[in-house]
Amino acid sequence: MANFQKLTPRSEDYSKWYNELVVKADLAEQSAVRGCMVIKPYGYAIWEKIQAELDYRFKQTGHVNAYFPLLIPKSFFSKEAEHIEGFAKESAVVTHHRLMKDPNGKGIVVDPDSKLEEELIIRPTSETIIWSTYKNWISSYRDLPILCNQWANVMRWEMRTRLFLRTAEFLWQEGHTAHATKEEAIEEAEKMLNVYAEFAENVMALPVVKGTKSPNERFAGALETYCIEAMMQDGKALQAGTSHFLGQNFAKSFDVQFLSKENKYEYVWATSWGVSTRLMGALIMTHSDDNGLVLPPHLAPIQVVIVPIFKKQEDLNQLLPVLQPLYDKLAAKGIRVKMDTSDKQTPGFKFADYELRGVPVRLAMGARDLANSTIEIARRDTLEKQTLPIEGIDEYIATLLEQIQKNVYQKALNYRLENTREVNSYDEFKEEIKKGGFLLCHWDGTKETEEKIKEETKATIRCIPFADNIIAKEHINVFEEGKCMVTGKPSKQRVIFAIAY
Amino acid sequence: MANFQKLTPRSEDYSKWYNELVVKADLAEQSAVRGCMVIKPYGYAIWEKIQAELDYRFKQTGHVNAYFPLLIPKSFFSKEAEHIEGFAKESAVVTHHRLMKDPNGKGIVVDPDSKLEEELIIRPTSETIIWSTYKNWISSYRDLPILCNQWANVMRWEMRTRLFLRTAEFLWQEGHTAHATKEEAIEEAEKMLNVYAEFAENVMALPVVKGTKSPNERFAGALETYCIEAMMQDGKALQAGTSHFLGQNFAKSFDVQFLSKENKYEYVWATSWGVSTRLMGALIMTHSDDNGLVLPPHLAPIQVVIVPIFKKQEDLNQLLPVLQPLYDKLAAKGIRVKMDTSDKQTPGFKFADYELRGVPVRLAMGARDLANSTIEIARRDTLEKQTLPIEGIDEYIATLLEQIQKNVYQKALNYRLENTREVNSYDEFKEEIKKGGFLLCHWDGTKETEEKIKEETKATIRCIPFADNIIAKEHINVFEEGKCMVTGKPSKQRVIFAIAY
Repeated sequence: MANFQKLTPRSEDYSKWYNELVVKADLAEQSAVRGCMVIKPYGYAIWEKIQAELDYRFKQTGHVNAYFPLLIPKSFFSKEAEHIEGFAKESAVVTHHRLMKDPNGKGIVVDPDSKLEEELIIRPTSETIIWSTYKNWISSYRDLPILCNQWANVMRWEMRTRLFLRTAEFLWQEGHTAHATKEEAIEEAEKMLNVYAEFAENVMALPVVKGTKSPNERFAGALETYCIEAMMQDGKALQAGTSHFLGQNFAKSFDVQFLSKENKYEYVWATSWGVSTRLMGALIMTHSDDNGLVLPPHLAPIQVVIVPIFKKQEDLNQLLPVLQPLYDKLAAKGIRVKMDTSDKQTPGFKFADYELRGVPVRLAMGARDLANSTIEIARRDTLEKQTLPIEGIDEYIATLLEQIQKNVYQKALNYRLENTREVNSYDEFKEEIKKGGFLLCHWDGTKETEEKIKEETKATIRCIPFADNIIAKEHINVFEEGKCMVTGKPSKQRVIFAIAY
Repeated sequence: MANFQKLTPRSEDYSKWYNELVVKADLAEQSAVRGCMVIKPYGYAIWEKIQAELDYRFKQTGHVNAYFPLLIPKSFFSKEAEHIEGFAKESAVVTHHRLMKDPNGKGIVVDPDSKLEEELIIRPTSETIIWSTYKNWISSYRDLPILCNQWANVMRWEMRTRLFLRTAEFLWQEGHTAHATKEEAIEEAEKMLNVYAEFAENVMALPVVKGTKSPNERFAGALETYCIEAMMQDGKALQAGTSHFLGQNFAKSFDVQFLSKENKYEYVWATSWGVSTRLMGALIMTHSDDNGLVLPPHLAPIQVVIVPIFKKQEDLNQLLPVLQPLYDKLAAKGIRVKMDTSDKQTPGFKFADYELRGVPVRLAMGARDLANSTIEIARRDTLEKQTLPIEGIDEYIATLLEQIQKNVYQKALNYRLENTREVNSYDEFKEEIKKGGFLLCHWDGTKETEEKIKEETKATIRCIPFADNIIAKEHINVFEEGKCMVTGKPSKQRVIFAIAY
């Protein structure tokens, strides 16, 4: 049951607001295991919607699902040098396979005789185990492409964790594809970036900038990492999804070659791409307010809640002959609607609870409305209320849900555009970065400059944006040439710097 | 790509037939990690259908999904005495959280400084971590019932593994519910058994016997285990799903009490219930034949395949104006249909491939059929072929799919009934059990007798059947009283003995 002590306002402590909201809206909570979360039923219902929408898009673009082992032999993991470098420090290691009674009578202990010959790592990502499998699946160009996706749990032993944003265990999907040519692999990596962006914008109402990562921020083992970056309400950046062009790195590490049409052995080209329960964090931090969660209708487990206002059962009995047909009409339109006739809570409690949970539209009807043939409609996004004739209200609500979807997107986009600024000198940068937001700057393309900036300001390059998306207000020319704000060396375009989650 | 070396016939080596079929039909394969399988895309597509059908039924009966941690602290795991006894010997144990470069230059090793204070067990089942969580969710009768399900991977370090049937890692769902009264918990456990049975029979076409387990075969920590048992084509039994009434055992171990309506603190009553990727094994072994997989239409990823017979593109171009409208009509009826216009394989190769993969209906059309306005229809279950006028064929196929669904069920049920026999003396039992099948016998209800029989014959009590299901042919009276075949002591009803997977 929700707890109605008020949320800490965002303006007071954004981080505390987030932590409280996640727990109070019944989305997730810390478990007894360090860094691992419990995703509660309401939070999981949103994740199921995210999964269904993405899975549909993956299948529409020709992908199939499969399942690969949770555990990866340590030796596999070490085969790709950058990859092991990237994940070694956060690996959960299985070393034994049996427990026994303590011979000294002190409960249950690990049986030392059950030590594994080779340690197994709980997957932090599955490139290695999958490419060791693909070796058996691929011999000729006829076996290509392979377009597999996996829905799975993964584990990265993070030292500092936060619900949804950074947890030791998280849920995700990971696509792993194998191609005959470099061009086809790059096309795939770009295609999936576009699938993610379309999903983020149309379903999650999350405006994102598409682009590539700088070499420092690339996935461990990738030649190119494509990303979608979003801005949270505190001006920080959040990486919402990545798609990697892996070149032939994993094919070479696991010796995966194919006989080409020209009868020559060649290494296979690879991509991988993933989004995770981190998206739940992005969803919450982009739209929600001091009253609680704000959900875009396309993701809301309950889109419309109907709350009859009554004290006695007979009052309810008078309302239901009007409300039940409305419920049926909305349900028939495919709207996810709930009728709350419980007498355990007051209407005021229910209103606050549905507000906290982000239900997009709330309908309320009492005796006076009944007499007037009207109904009260409250929008969660704007908190506006209006009373309208009940006649034709189902059509109005169907339209309203789409309006709300657009409005929460537009609001988030406006916020991002207002907080995306052009910066031309490093001195200015050091001041501006303290205010948050995306800073569009010229950079000389070197690791050294990027590292210097990170060290001195904590800001990183979030994204080298593509031309085919909305990045900033029109007066900022992102794609003109210029000079690096730190070194003065030439730069082909502005890149996005920000402090990131 | 499928491999058309013929399968070993079932009559020659049933076990070998199964192992070959799983791999050749592209369902699953062994991974590089001992006992862990890769579920290949075709196998996973069937599992997704199983998931969707079950998930729908769980939600219809008021359950919600959630997600709990993969790792369980060793101390939690030890709190319920029988539970730890049941799972200790097959526990994968995480002891460290970091890898490092070997200081002696020998690759990557486990960092000894990253040893965990308390070892973590990869969940073999989640009662303990879930009940430690429910403690925070439950304080009053108003918080009950809790009706959660989880879709997850689990791990049991089995020494002898077989694809789908017994693997170290497997996928499953586990329901965990909490109730205010004993009666309500028992009702829930029984309800979910009925959900499983209805699903098994109507979707998987898998005839099952519903009943309870004997004390020896109960889940570790349960007061009662309900089960559905199926018979495979080699006469062995396979446990297809279980539902447990856990009493207050886990509530007591984790101190989960609630304030009742009468204002008294009471321990919460629990159930858990699960089915796993083992169902894939049951599906394969129940219906398939020496030509490959036979899928019931309700689970088939492809229900109907259309194979145009052509050599040149122009032949195909003549067929498509007839076949494409047929494809569209079938798809419009919600039938999962595939048109195979590939020119990479011969029609003969395609026929054998779809047969191996168990596609229920295959349609083929060549030049002669086109001239005659006919089409060839092949049923996978009976291997019958017939040529029919193409006019009205879409209606015919919709009906045929339901006929096939019923036929594969009836065939499996007939097999089971023919191999379910009454046995009245232990001498007869020792002979009959060698022939396989279900043996209906009187038993005195003691562990000692059950263990003696198991030791001497390897047979176990699979199920103490309920009266409300088809158990045997009518002449066998299961519910008359009698005397135990071993000890001569009184027995209230016959129970099912069999050799089990």
